[in-house]
Amino acid sequence: MDTHTIDTADTPEPQPEEDTPWLTAREQRMWRAHLEVAKLLEYQLSRELQPHSLAINDYEILVVLSEAPDHRMRMTDLATATLQSKSRLSHQITRMENAGLVLRQECPNDRRGLYAHLTEQGWETMQRVAPDHVRSVRAHFIDRFTPEQLDAIYEALAPVADHLRGLRGRS
Amino acid sequence: MDTHTIDTADTPEPQPEEDTPWLTAREQRMWRAHLEVAKLLEYQLSRELQPHSLAINDYEILVVLSEAPDHRMRMTDLATATLQSKSRLSHQITRMENAGLVLRQECPNDRRGLYAHLTEQGWETMQRVAPDHVRSVRAHFIDRFTPEQLDAIYEALAPVADHLRGLRGRS
Repeated sequence: MDTHTIDTADTPEPQPEEDTPWLTAREQRMWRAHLEVAKLLEYQLSRELQPHSLAINDYEILVVLSEAPDHRMRMTDLATATLQSKSRLSHQITRMENAGLVLRQECPNDRRGLYAHLTEQGWETMQRVAPDHVRSVRAHFIDRFTPEQLDAIYEALAPVADHLRGLRGRS
Repeated sequence: MDTHTIDTADTPEPQPEEDTPWLTAREQRMWRAHLEVAKLLEYQLSRELQPHSLAINDYEILVVLSEAPDHRMRMTDLATATLQSKSRLSHQITRMENAGLVLRQECPNDRRGLYAHLTEQGWETMQRVAPDHVRSVRAHFIDRFTPEQLDAIYEALAPVADHLRGLRGRS
């Protein structure tokens, strides 16, 4: 007689898998909707930037630099602001430098540091592309929510963003 | 006398920039929170998969294949399911094949087609990693919302996902 089987049936021993807090159906559908929207929206916005010969990450760099004092930022700060690794950002800035959108410059006060500087062409590109990009963001995302939904989602997401930014800062 | 300037002042000609439906502060903060959470969450989940030597896209492939009949899918269907281009998926499957997680197989009924097939090792990897991944998803996302927020966000995002899936299908 297999006492182990009987023991298990009477007072089930926890199985590793049973310890796992699997998502409920309700949680699962929200999680999948979030993943899908994040991924599909990035795809669609990228597609609509293609006629401007810009990748979505390039556009983000243009926006961040155009909002920075003197249109320039230390490469390390730009990596933090765009949540990229320094090596990945470096490759991207090289491509954007070749396209005439940004320039690398040495920091006057820090020989080890480098700035990324928006060129005149980069600034003009940003200004030309921004209206189309805003229309895309509205058409595929923002205008699809009621004002109440906009606020409810913001209030739900803002503390999550704070939490994740904190973890990122510590890494 | 510069009549053009006066005309413009009296009955302002629409400027291209003034036609742009820029986001309001309320819309802008929600848009930024969405972008930040999407990006930071992907970063954090990727980080927590690193001890398992898996990229987040690899994990997604394992999940999709493990849910497919016979643990296999046509490469074209897998590209659709994971919202990737066929060329990018092909590179990824090559890496995963080298890691022993999947196998490419010819379709028996379609000489042009290829299947990606989950290996026994791929299946075991998925089962080993899934509990940790679920805990990460809970800790950094799902458990940070009230049940009401989960439902409200799902109801807001689901039609947006439908809209974007429709656009993607047409492309």
